[in-house]
Amino acid sequence: MSNTFGKSFCITSFGESHGHMIGVVISGCPAGLEISPEEIQAELDRRKPGGPSSTTRREDDSLQIISGITGNRTTGAPITLAVTSHDIDSSAYAKISSIPRPGHADYCARIKYGGFSDQRGGGRFSGRITAGFVMAGAIAKKLLSKSGICIAAHTTELGRIQAPNATWEEIITTSRPNELSCANEAAASNMIEAINKARNKGDSLGGIIEVWATGIPVGLGEPVFDTLDGELAKAFFAVPGVKGVEFGAGFASSRLNGSQNNDAIIVRDGEISFSSNNAGGVLGGISNGMPLIARVAIKPTPSIGIPQDSVDLNTMQPVRLEIKGRHDVCILPRAVVVIESMTAVTLVDFAIRAQIIPGVIK
Amino acid sequence: MSNTFGKSFCITSFGESHGHMIGVVISGCPAGLEISPEEIQAELDRRKPGGPSSTTRREDDSLQIISGITGNRTTGAPITLAVTSHDIDSSAYAKISSIPRPGHADYCARIKYGGFSDQRGGGRFSGRITAGFVMAGAIAKKLLSKSGICIAAHTTELGRIQAPNATWEEIITTSRPNELSCANEAAASNMIEAINKARNKGDSLGGIIEVWATGIPVGLGEPVFDTLDGELAKAFFAVPGVKGVEFGAGFASSRLNGSQNNDAIIVRDGEISFSSNNAGGVLGGISNGMPLIARVAIKPTPSIGIPQDSVDLNTMQPVRLEIKGRHDVCILPRAVVVIESMTAVTLVDFAIRAQIIPGVIK
Amino acid sequence: MSNTFGKSFCITSFGESHGHMIGVVISGCPAGLEISPEEIQAELDRRKPGGPSSTTRREDDSLQIISGITGNRTTGAPITLAVTSHDIDSSAYAKISSIPRPGHADYCARIKYGGFSDQRGGGRFSGRITAGFVMAGAIAKKLLSKSGICIAAHTTELGRIQAPNATWEEIITTSRPNELSCANEAAASNMIEAINKARNKGDSLGGIIEVWATGIPVGLGEPVFDTLDGELAKAFFAVPGVKGVEFGAGFASSRLNGSQNNDAIIVRDGEISFSSNNAGGVLGGISNGMPLIARVAIKPTPSIGIPQDSVDLNTMQPVRLEIKGRHDVCILPRAVVVIESMTAVTLVDFAIRAQIIPGVIK
Amino acid sequence: MSNTFGKSFCITSFGESHGHMIGVVISGCPAGLEISPEEIQAELDRRKPGGPSSTTRREDDSLQIISGITGNRTTGAPITLAVTSHDIDSSAYAKISSIPRPGHADYCARIKYGGFSDQRGGGRFSGRITAGFVMAGAIAKKLLSKSGICIAAHTTELGRIQAPNATWEEIITTSRPNELSCANEAAASNMIEAINKARNKGDSLGGIIEVWATGIPVGLGEPVFDTLDGELAKAFFAVPGVKGVEFGAGFASSRLNGSQNNDAIIVRDGEISFSSNNAGGVLGGISNGMPLIARVAIKPTPSIGIPQDSVDLNTMQPVRLEIKGRHDVCILPRAVVVIESMTAVTLVDFAIRAQIIPGVIK
Repeated sequence: MSNTFGKSFCITSFGESHGHMIGVVISGCPAGLEISPEEIQAELDRRKPGGPSSTTRREDDSLQIISGITGNRTTGAPITLAVTSHDIDSSAYAKISSIPRPGHADYCARIKYGGFSDQRGGGRFSGRITAGFVMAGAIAKKLLSKSGICIAAHTTELGRIQAPNATWEEIITTSRPNELSCANEAAASNMIEAINKARNKGDSLGGIIEVWATGIPVGLGEPVFDTLDGELAKAFFAVPGVKGVEFGAGFASSRLNGSQNNDAIIVRDGEISFSSNNAGGVLGGISNGMPLIARVAIKPTPSIGIPQDSVDLNTMQPVRLEIKGRHDVCILPRAVVVIESMTAVTLVDFAIRAQIIPGVIK
Repeated sequence: MSNTFGKSFCITSFGESHGHMIGVVISGCPAGLEISPEEIQAELDRRKPGGPSSTTRREDDSLQIISGITGNRTTGAPITLAVTSHDIDSSAYAKISSIPRPGHADYCARIKYGGFSDQRGGGRFSGRITAGFVMAGAIAKKLLSKSGICIAAHTTELGRIQAPNATWEEIITTSRPNELSCANEAAASNMIEAINKARNKGDSLGGIIEVWATGIPVGLGEPVFDTLDGELAKAFFAVPGVKGVEFGAGFASSRLNGSQNNDAIIVRDGEISFSSNNAGGVLGGISNGMPLIARVAIKPTPSIGIPQDSVDLNTMQPVRLEIKGRHDVCILPRAVVVIESMTAVTLVDFAIRAQIIPGVIK
Repeated sequence: MSNTFGKSFCITSFGESHGHMIGVVISGCPAGLEISPEEIQAELDRRKPGGPSSTTRREDDSLQIISGITGNRTTGAPITLAVTSHDIDSSAYAKISSIPRPGHADYCARIKYGGFSDQRGGGRFSGRITAGFVMAGAIAKKLLSKSGICIAAHTTELGRIQAPNATWEEIITTSRPNELSCANEAAASNMIEAINKARNKGDSLGGIIEVWATGIPVGLGEPVFDTLDGELAKAFFAVPGVKGVEFGAGFASSRLNGSQNNDAIIVRDGEISFSSNNAGGVLGGISNGMPLIARVAIKPTPSIGIPQDSVDLNTMQPVRLEIKGRHDVCILPRAVVVIESMTAVTLVDFAIRAQIIPGVIK
Repeated sequence: MSNTFGKSFCITSFGESHGHMIGVVISGCPAGLEISPEEIQAELDRRKPGGPSSTTRREDDSLQIISGITGNRTTGAPITLAVTSHDIDSSAYAKISSIPRPGHADYCARIKYGGFSDQRGGGRFSGRITAGFVMAGAIAKKLLSKSGICIAAHTTELGRIQAPNATWEEIITTSRPNELSCANEAAASNMIEAINKARNKGDSLGGIIEVWATGIPVGLGEPVFDTLDGELAKAFFAVPGVKGVEFGAGFASSRLNGSQNNDAIIVRDGEISFSSNNAGGVLGGISNGMPLIARVAIKPTPSIGIPQDSVDLNTMQPVRLEIKGRHDVCILPRAVVVIESMTAVTLVDFAIRAQIIPGVIK
């Protein structure tokens, strides 16, 4: 396992679904950043269950600041943040320990860790570990805001329902109160319908999250290997369920001609800009000053009520598996803040490396 | 700039388009691997210009083994491989040095490196640096072959022409002699037509490369951050022109229900397997024993003959830019071996970390 | 700050002297290792105050296993271990917050972290953070023991009292129960006398710790930069108070002729060995199969009762500083287990990289 | 093998003693630094054979700039520098290939690399690879000079002859022209006598190099693990022959009382300073604004003319080994610039991380 991400702003993730604590250690955060527990808790609350698509599990996810913040200021020392696990019901999992669940990492983990991995609730592979990502993201976002960089994500597609293209203003103002984090009300109501239909069948849905970051100066990204897009993609694939990542026009750009896809270079307000943003804000692995735009494809929740084919690894006999745990029909609404967080964490790392963010915040 | 990739099998890339040498240093390659210069040269030759879509530049790309291989055996010391640049015509570039080319990194690089970067031929951002990736890939592939892991990529879409799904046998047998590395002859001939049409207009095309890796044991990948898919995505984004990456069903999986997307777990030949491969061989960031399948979206070549809008950075006045250099209409056919190489380099790193590949090859 | 050490077996340290918790996250520990809380606690107890040279502070250092161990077995997930702080008396420190203490990092930290660092009890620079190193070391030692590698350190000099050379048997059998971890009784009693004398004067003492590791196979160490000796030295300098590190004959070897210093190569019990061990078990940055022997020079505790010259940073006026906190006269006896721990952590990292330790412990 | 050092300013070393080229790739050097080939060559010339203690081998070490510098300015791209090997006489080594030389890494390398390592001239373990360190050091020193940081080393002890303590002025003015890099003429002449005596006996000598760095601001170093002293120590142990490293009073400080060892904090010229420098410029792993002072113990050259006991690994029979190659009686005079270089490389890395050195040098 490799649980640390970032070169200058490093986050180390720890915890399992049904363990004592899930958390993160942040190393390399500048000293002096003002941040309150409430600000971090507010981000955690955005990934809490409770929306129309989510599990009925209660996850309090109540923040504990273990180190690195004193008097609401970062001290320069590693910041350790954690949530304690409550309301754990492992009974549903106990029965299936020798039967890997389709679409989950159960089988891979069992082989890789010799049967010693903690399988309860998905263990280390559970979506619950993203609570740590979100706590780190809260710090990262606050840091970025000092440099005028702002991040927002939204659900742009869910259960085959596509929301129309949204503007930055729509994304930041509409999405947050909306339970699905979808910027378009009509699409959101269709998505809820799709969710209810899937839930009734015991099935699940996937979708696409789009994340924007504005205010990024030209020059973030360290090619040829630590590219802005490459590190973001790596960060996104750490989120359970992600199967694809694209920037700007993405896969669609592969179907354009060069004359259509190239963003013309123009002067806007006395500064270099681009007439369009097919690049999604990144050229040659470096930010170009336009909004960064990435889209992340998330597969449908693998835990479904419909019986599925699996194998009992003890007997090597086929079994018909029914999963009875409480699961999200679709994780997208809760994953929006996670994608924002990984974006923020990655951008902060590059911003420190590019000396956009200083070693001490006054 | 960050020019080293990998934790155990580390490649360090160096060189600029019009510099003296383009190359790679490979650190962490096991000693004793038998590899001939011809094997490495054969891979280099696969990315040479010459096919229907490529530039008329002559790039000999003649291999030099600088260190780390003695008597066709790796010694355990860092392996340095390079090609020397010939036939360099910088004249076309000299004129436009203050005018960034749309779709290129010119403007970003100028800002990030304060005007000191070598702009000739795209400098550090040129596709030519991927010659280094290919030399590293040749070593990586040879190493993987010792463990029964085999990699092949093919052009699955080019200029909006989609090739039908190919089998592993088609990919490895058909693709290589084919100048477009497309496994389907009818599609290939349509692609060539599209290329000729684009060339006549001075325009360019993009497309999609699909890469497969077979023979991968269960357990490669080091979540939660160094996931198999995340590191591969990062590796792919180091290749100029890549705008999207997906695994297995990828973006399409976001439109499936869980009951459709989950790959059922079955017993095949006495071993655990899966009835389908929507996962693309990776679950929870770890290989699951099925073929690894990734698709990479590549944008159309940004250098086109059609005049484009840009700005003279010295005067901040708009200019109409005509690019007269010799460029590929579409880089996909030459990029196929590059995508294979980055796949190989990434897999070797994980295979060493998982102790699948030993420290000495006997 | 950079708080992660190791490439394959990575430890991330967190916590400040007067914070809520001091701990460590261990990433990359093989799954299946059997280890009980008692084994870890026993190591923690070795660095507890209580001996003749130590503070009268009570530090319970009671172990909490937060993640990564279930049923006394490592799961492959990151292992988080922590101790909670009790009996914190910050009053003595509050008064001197603008007056840096000579010999401490106070002034450096204040400048580097802009005055935001937690100065109480030395904050992040306190010896207390080595509790995290010891917990990681307990895991590392257990892992190494599976491969027959055994580590022991002893106090070889304290307050100018030198203990005679000790054999491996003396080090492992005599040192542990001895409160000073000195292998020689006569020397130990002289050391205690020196300690008492220094305490009466309000002064402090330093000394030298020697660490041995036996059972190391040939081949640990990854030159040219990640040498066995270089990484160990780096690990030791993370321990507060260390001012010098040497291997084998060390500084004394610089005064020998080559004919005296070279260890002759011989056959012993049918295997290659060496007639002497001036190399201290390492040649060319790689273990040579002989016992690894390193010596670490530790300066006298900087906190002393004798008044010292400092400056009030608010007024830039000289002040006469009297430190009234409860401090160790000499940290060596408590540091012995810390040096062992950093040795173990470093060796495990190399052993995993050399594939001596497998990914799963059965 | 691990051949890359540094996090922000990364050097990757390549080459073997009798290979085609020995060199270095520098990644992360700011763009715009003005540096001429002559400046780099001048540093290389300082480690050339030719002085009273050195080999009669001719090593031209003529610089080749392969990438990253255009028009005497760094471009931001990776800088590749190399020297080509000439006058290679491997005959003396061919005979002893199955007989490891005492004091060398031959035996360790043979085991670790399965007999595939290039043993000629010590291969990867030869002092010749430090030519790469010196080329990187030339760039690093130039960068540091822009921030007022200056580095100089001198031979402070050789063959048991100790030079008296030197001042910074003596070190920088006296040492360089002196063939032994010793700041004291009388000591130097005694050292030459000792060298001649050892040479006549076919024996070799070691010694101690002291390195100073002045102009370092407070705050370089990233504890708790990437300490200034720890990284420097790691860097020094990459230099063949180093057996010990100490800072400031070093091992001697372990014999002082706290009241003697603590450097009193004072105001000098309106700024915080210290009345003495037992700390050697580093406290808590962070620079304190005083000159950085380190001492490095170097063992006597292991290659000696006097016959030594070894074993033929093919027959496992004892042999009496006479080494006939051309070797340095003492490497110290040539190692002085190597120690300076590793100091410079380490300091630049920390200076970039602390944002003392910007991303572009104007």
